[in-house]
Amino acid sequence: MTYDDGRAVSPLGDRDADLLAPGRAGSPAEAATGDTAFLRAMLDAEAALTRAQASLGLAPAEAARAVTETAVADRFDVSDLALRGRSGGNPVIPLVADLTAAVAEAHAPYVHRGATSQDILDTAAMLVASRTLGPVLADLDRTAHALARLAAEHRDTPMPGRTLTQHAVPTTFGLKAAGWRSLVLDARDRLTAVRGSLPAQLGGAAGTLAAFHAYAEADGVAHPEPGVRLVGTYARELGLSEPSLPWHTLRTPLADLAGALAFTSGALGKVAADVLVLSRTEIGELSEGSGGGSSAMPHKANPVRATLIAAAARRAPALAAVLYGCVAAEDERPAGAWHAEWETLRDLLRLVGGAARDAAELVAGLQVHPARMRKHLDLTEGLIVSERLTAVVAARLGRARAKELLTDAARASRTEGATLAEVLTVEPALKDLDLDSLTDPTHYTGAAGTLTDRALTRL
Amino acid sequence: MTYDDGRAVSPLGDRDADLLAPGRAGSPAEAATGDTAFLRAMLDAEAALTRAQASLGLAPAEAARAVTETAVADRFDVSDLALRGRSGGNPVIPLVADLTAAVAEAHAPYVHRGATSQDILDTAAMLVASRTLGPVLADLDRTAHALARLAAEHRDTPMPGRTLTQHAVPTTFGLKAAGWRSLVLDARDRLTAVRGSLPAQLGGAAGTLAAFHAYAEADGVAHPEPGVRLVGTYARELGLSEPSLPWHTLRTPLADLAGALAFTSGALGKVAADVLVLSRTEIGELSEGSGGGSSAMPHKANPVRATLIAAAARRAPALAAVLYGCVAAEDERPAGAWHAEWETLRDLLRLVGGAARDAAELVAGLQVHPARMRKHLDLTEGLIVSERLTAVVAARLGRARAKELLTDAARASRTEGATLAEVLTVEPALKDLDLDSLTDPTHYTGAAGTLTDRALTRL
Amino acid sequence: MTYDDGRAVSPLGDRDADLLAPGRAGSPAEAATGDTAFLRAMLDAEAALTRAQASLGLAPAEAARAVTETAVADRFDVSDLALRGRSGGNPVIPLVADLTAAVAEAHAPYVHRGATSQDILDTAAMLVASRTLGPVLADLDRTAHALARLAAEHRDTPMPGRTLTQHAVPTTFGLKAAGWRSLVLDARDRLTAVRGSLPAQLGGAAGTLAAFHAYAEADGVAHPEPGVRLVGTYARELGLSEPSLPWHTLRTPLADLAGALAFTSGALGKVAADVLVLSRTEIGELSEGSGGGSSAMPHKANPVRATLIAAAARRAPALAAVLYGCVAAEDERPAGAWHAEWETLRDLLRLVGGAARDAAELVAGLQVHPARMRKHLDLTEGLIVSERLTAVVAARLGRARAKELLTDAARASRTEGATLAEVLTVEPALKDLDLDSLTDPTHYTGAAGTLTDRALTRL
Amino acid sequence: MTYDDGRAVSPLGDRDADLLAPGRAGSPAEAATGDTAFLRAMLDAEAALTRAQASLGLAPAEAARAVTETAVADRFDVSDLALRGRSGGNPVIPLVADLTAAVAEAHAPYVHRGATSQDILDTAAMLVASRTLGPVLADLDRTAHALARLAAEHRDTPMPGRTLTQHAVPTTFGLKAAGWRSLVLDARDRLTAVRGSLPAQLGGAAGTLAAFHAYAEADGVAHPEPGVRLVGTYARELGLSEPSLPWHTLRTPLADLAGALAFTSGALGKVAADVLVLSRTEIGELSEGSGGGSSAMPHKANPVRATLIAAAARRAPALAAVLYGCVAAEDERPAGAWHAEWETLRDLLRLVGGAARDAAELVAGLQVHPARMRKHLDLTEGLIVSERLTAVVAARLGRARAKELLTDAARASRTEGATLAEVLTVEPALKDLDLDSLTDPTHYTGAAGTLTDRALTRL
Repeated sequence: MTYDDGRAVSPLGDRDADLLAPGRAGSPAEAATGDTAFLRAMLDAEAALTRAQASLGLAPAEAARAVTETAVADRFDVSDLALRGRSGGNPVIPLVADLTAAVAEAHAPYVHRGATSQDILDTAAMLVASRTLGPVLADLDRTAHALARLAAEHRDTPMPGRTLTQHAVPTTFGLKAAGWRSLVLDARDRLTAVRGSLPAQLGGAAGTLAAFHAYAEADGVAHPEPGVRLVGTYARELGLSEPSLPWHTLRTPLADLAGALAFTSGALGKVAADVLVLSRTEIGELSEGSGGGSSAMPHKANPVRATLIAAAARRAPALAAVLYGCVAAEDERPAGAWHAEWETLRDLLRLVGGAARDAAELVAGLQVHPARMRKHLDLTEGLIVSERLTAVVAARLGRARAKELLTDAARASRTEGATLAEVLTVEPALKDLDLDSLTDPTHYTGAAGTLTDRALTRL
Repeated sequence: MTYDDGRAVSPLGDRDADLLAPGRAGSPAEAATGDTAFLRAMLDAEAALTRAQASLGLAPAEAARAVTETAVADRFDVSDLALRGRSGGNPVIPLVADLTAAVAEAHAPYVHRGATSQDILDTAAMLVASRTLGPVLADLDRTAHALARLAAEHRDTPMPGRTLTQHAVPTTFGLKAAGWRSLVLDARDRLTAVRGSLPAQLGGAAGTLAAFHAYAEADGVAHPEPGVRLVGTYARELGLSEPSLPWHTLRTPLADLAGALAFTSGALGKVAADVLVLSRTEIGELSEGSGGGSSAMPHKANPVRATLIAAAARRAPALAAVLYGCVAAEDERPAGAWHAEWETLRDLLRLVGGAARDAAELVAGLQVHPARMRKHLDLTEGLIVSERLTAVVAARLGRARAKELLTDAARASRTEGATLAEVLTVEPALKDLDLDSLTDPTHYTGAAGTLTDRALTRL
Repeated sequence: MTYDDGRAVSPLGDRDADLLAPGRAGSPAEAATGDTAFLRAMLDAEAALTRAQASLGLAPAEAARAVTETAVADRFDVSDLALRGRSGGNPVIPLVADLTAAVAEAHAPYVHRGATSQDILDTAAMLVASRTLGPVLADLDRTAHALARLAAEHRDTPMPGRTLTQHAVPTTFGLKAAGWRSLVLDARDRLTAVRGSLPAQLGGAAGTLAAFHAYAEADGVAHPEPGVRLVGTYARELGLSEPSLPWHTLRTPLADLAGALAFTSGALGKVAADVLVLSRTEIGELSEGSGGGSSAMPHKANPVRATLIAAAARRAPALAAVLYGCVAAEDERPAGAWHAEWETLRDLLRLVGGAARDAAELVAGLQVHPARMRKHLDLTEGLIVSERLTAVVAARLGRARAKELLTDAARASRTEGATLAEVLTVEPALKDLDLDSLTDPTHYTGAAGTLTDRALTRL
Repeated sequence: MTYDDGRAVSPLGDRDADLLAPGRAGSPAEAATGDTAFLRAMLDAEAALTRAQASLGLAPAEAARAVTETAVADRFDVSDLALRGRSGGNPVIPLVADLTAAVAEAHAPYVHRGATSQDILDTAAMLVASRTLGPVLADLDRTAHALARLAAEHRDTPMPGRTLTQHAVPTTFGLKAAGWRSLVLDARDRLTAVRGSLPAQLGGAAGTLAAFHAYAEADGVAHPEPGVRLVGTYARELGLSEPSLPWHTLRTPLADLAGALAFTSGALGKVAADVLVLSRTEIGELSEGSGGGSSAMPHKANPVRATLIAAAARRAPALAAVLYGCVAAEDERPAGAWHAEWETLRDLLRLVGGAARDAAELVAGLQVHPARMRKHLDLTEGLIVSERLTAVVAARLGRARAKELLTDAARASRTEGATLAEVLTVEPALKDLDLDSLTDPTHYTGAAGTLTDRALTRL
């Protein structure tokens, strides 16, 4: 095989190692979702199936032991399985062939007995999702803890509240951090709920469990509903939930994962979006602990972690959309909608896994610059509290007059370079007011402290 | 204004009436999400705000009455508000102006007092979502009931199970309908949960509730934390949940709606996908009660309801992706991420609302043709139960020999046009088997009946 | 019909008037894509079909006249058509019924003769697209002109170049505006190309044009290939391209529109993204001519146009994805993939139409603040040109030493609050250099001027 | 590092080998887009940069030779680069460090001189895209050739035309294959156009080319506009187009790739969608040459190639949407929008590359079953030509009466199991007609032959 410019394409050496994925390179989610991790999960599913059958008298105990001992990832060649998977369109078919060949002939009949490829691959996907979400949840917990600390520490650190890019009224960094934390906890709760209900898959060729009946009958094993009982035993072997129905084309578990993962990506993306704004050169209210360098400019300290989280947040919703689209799957196994899920789910797990690790690193090292925040509160010469003045003036002069007066004062402040207090001081009706205090932005943070306290009571 | 071909563009008469939306035309969701419905919800939010303030002593009771009486949709001009909304980028600004002008001058200061546009628009969106989900959930319930009936009635109606477009092993229509129902119930449960937690929005300019403090102070109302208390009262006035924090840029509610709606669309899309396959001219196992006509062919009876549900299922995931993408919103109010949500949420509610109505109609009138299903079970001359034969033969001759023998038999059956039973009957080792019974597809539906029963116990 | 809270749903008054769409409210694209515009386009298609048949002798000239005279939008009831469209799943079926009823009985046979619903609806969609793109292209031209003016005027206005949110090296506002313009021209070119090739649709029931043959034969009109000739005549009547094949399920035109529109949205979104950053309170290098007000804060001047363009840019790609997804359409007319296109294309045209108008307004009024730009170039005390210093120092001391020295100097500058020139001045090896000039950021804009000039030569 | 169940995560052995990607496993696109391919392309860019500088006198010729000789992929450790890329957020930074260290000290200053990471990574992405599109275009050509053969061979093979899943009127398999081919050629044309214009990237830190000026000046090389000239030379070294402006945040090339690739995926997806329908067990008009086996059912022959193409078509549009979304990129290098492109583009190239190979294999081996097609034309007992009868009868009895009569006849045919000809034969007004010929579906294929011929003239 050659490139069209004549150079040979090497079949080796082109396996991916995250060169294009600094967000997930070396992360726990990366390892937990790799081909080997999927291979291991498929083998776990096969072994659990034989063990479950053995425990119900549908297979010999020695077969269960033999399959379990043989179903070890490093005995199988991932690349070879991948290529041979082309023929039938999934990797389970060659894997079953290899696993069957690897056990003693006596045990061979009990490998994959009664199952369909999708039973194994779906179960493996759930195992991989569950295993990946472990470190992801740990990273979210770390992130939430660090944010709780930041919120408590900066409960009363005033900073400009910004809406549509413009200073609005003051807020506090504590409230902002508490809000970030509440999003992270929302993500944690959703992922935890989904993870707790991930089901094993077992239905046989078309979801009727008929082959398990056929084998029980052929082997003379008297068993009312061997298939239905097997599903529960199999699920327990794997630590997954027992589904009420085979879900080959009832894809609620995939959709639930899609939603929780896309939301998590967005939740972390919110943190990143704020960090990116607040660490701009002109703003500098936040900075990453160890900003990334540049290949050309020695002075640069880029918000790299936030950048990579933001990149993930741009990609995850589209992947979730693919998974939601696959819910509308025809027949007992769809021609395409199932196959489109595999890499999409993996990519989504990886994006979120990478972003969760980056978020944990980001907030652990986040530097907060209260002096910059304070300085910026004065940038508008008091206009950032014009809302408050409107209230005060309206109580004296009426709402219409207050709006008018404040609008004029805002204009005057801008054109004359005077503070709002200075401009208003000439207004007779406001003579007795302590305008300096009323226009002090640090005195106008409303319920920010109370809200922060309340948000931090959430566990 | 003219088109580039010189004809005048009429500013009137071009309001949308669902000409391109047969899926949602005339549906409850359509009406519940129209501009007037949003206007009404915004006015409900404004009136609730003043009433809540009055109940806490932050506004006169007469002002609350006056605002409530005035905040009636037909007093306002939707088109005019839409156009004037361009200036500030949202419709609340002109609406507040009009509402303020419409109440007596004495009450004017208590209109929208302390609130920001997003408080009103977000609250209105939650009200609209809640009101739309009412009829949607009713349609899902109707659908689930009809499916329960179909599943029970056809618990033992055998039909081909199909995987990757090909006959696999038999299943039953009861199990298929039970599976559809379980998806519909999954959708109902998710929508119900989301609907039950939709929060009111109230945070003021930057989410600190500061203006409520300022007005209380200016008016000399002694109130510890008037803002925080106000949020709860306001939410109760509206029948919405009290949020723990203002969520101007903590968009969990939108993401939860997005996920539940996209899933619902997919769940109904699964039903539609199956109906579309099974009502194909060559298959004809199902047909819609009142198939749609054609403009050219008098004989056609198209599966129109399924088609429109399928169309919605193609669109909803992309809209959900937009909403998930908007979770990563910068600052205290984002410049774009918020604005992108409004129509997207509305469109998603409409798509799902239309699909839910179509699904209710579809399953209510669905015609099942068991004779066609039975006939198709014989299409493969018994090969549809080759799995069962493999089990039986393997118990006698071993797995390897069984596979070989069945593969040969399958080939022979196809080339000779003989049934599997006929081909196998010449095999000495199988002489004593009742091959006719063993190859009867109606005897090979496994646990389909049990699974159907179990699925129908779910409420 | 009632809401679930018991209030009646009004079937009237709930038609949309863009209350949630400040980006497109009142825009030419809005009017050009409304239900009435689609109705008009469908009628145009029907009339053109009869005229084309008449010109080939396949229908009487009087019938063509009659249909053309009758096919006027205000004779038809859009709402009624929308509701009746539910039955067959598209609005053409009831429209043909009404149009047929509206012409004299003698002409009725020549209404919609030989056509299928999709012929009319697809053709109408192409007409609507073409008519909408007229004003869109005009707005892009206006935008490009204004940007050319800005680029020329600010060819040498230096400002900080920003990468990953941090100051990198200087650039010019002229180069930035020239880059914006090149994107707008790229969009214009793509839309113009697509618009120039939008095809009429005519294929009959399954794309074979058979009905036109049947009618010609039944009427005794001797015509070799009447269908094929009719397609060309019909297309010319409509000012659309003649397709080489009926494209009922060959959706290249929709995909081409999707791509060009999504790109346009992104191109304008780039302009908006920059304006949003550069008009932040702390940055203030740009401001919108007439910033939007706020409902709560009299001093605010929000970048509303940029915000609305940014919102559109968040939504358009997802809509384009739906259209690309519909290319994989089964059969001669797909059950869902076609129906999913209609509103999606309309929404995409509207988003882009609104964004194009907003962009034209935005750049027409954009205020540039060179003094702020100049001031910001000094924010990093000369570090913004550290790259240049690296080059100079490397030529003297070698690359490694230069990097080291500059990295140290950057650190010293930051900690000591000294400029880079001040820090470096103590370095003996650099004694003879004019450090003030070398660290003057306005002297380090590279080829920005040349590139701007070159970009402006593009027409 | 351990999984949360205590087992150790292996850092080795988890690199991906397409276990989950049967669609692209072992494909040319797979190899051409792997990490090593990207590494090679980045090195090609670095080497070309030094050579281009040498050819303009901006670097010694020996440095160019040395860098070119050293810039060989197998000298670098992809995994190590990936992990070190985390620090700065992209792999170019560590690569430049390693490349610099690998050349003799004298040449080190000429490695990456004046460039920014994005120059190298963007250029590499364009090289990879160009190299991947080579085999993709070859596969599309193979596919188009096979389809031309099929279309010519089956120019007059009648089959049912199907709309909304129901038989409509007859068509031919030749016309269907010609339509598929026209889509494939549309894809080829779009990809070829995009491939022909892929630009090199060179702009330096913020797109002003300033560093090239700085180095030229520091080295005393008199050169008017060395940067601008360098861009052209560099592009020619690489066989890429010369961009008119640095396009760090002018992402037209990415958007163009996104659109052409998403369209290609959809075009092939259309072929797959039809094959999936037509190879259903009940239809069987087409079958894949070597259908995929099943792990459970020896008789199954699944349409695996079509399934994998369909899966790709479900995923590609979402990836394209991500790329379109990244066009709205802020500043001179965006914090996230750039990073989100890398893997997305790679995945899109792979999906399309895999699908193109699968399509070539699919159509090369596609088996057409004209007898099944012919048989199905009779499934509706002649109703498939009711349109034709309507024309004939209308010419005699008027349109209204014709519709009525045919609708009645359709009903009678269905209920009585009689053919349309039989039913109509009793109608006195039609006595003299040759109803057998008029209702012969093979006589009603309209312009299918002519259209096929015409489509095949396209090269």
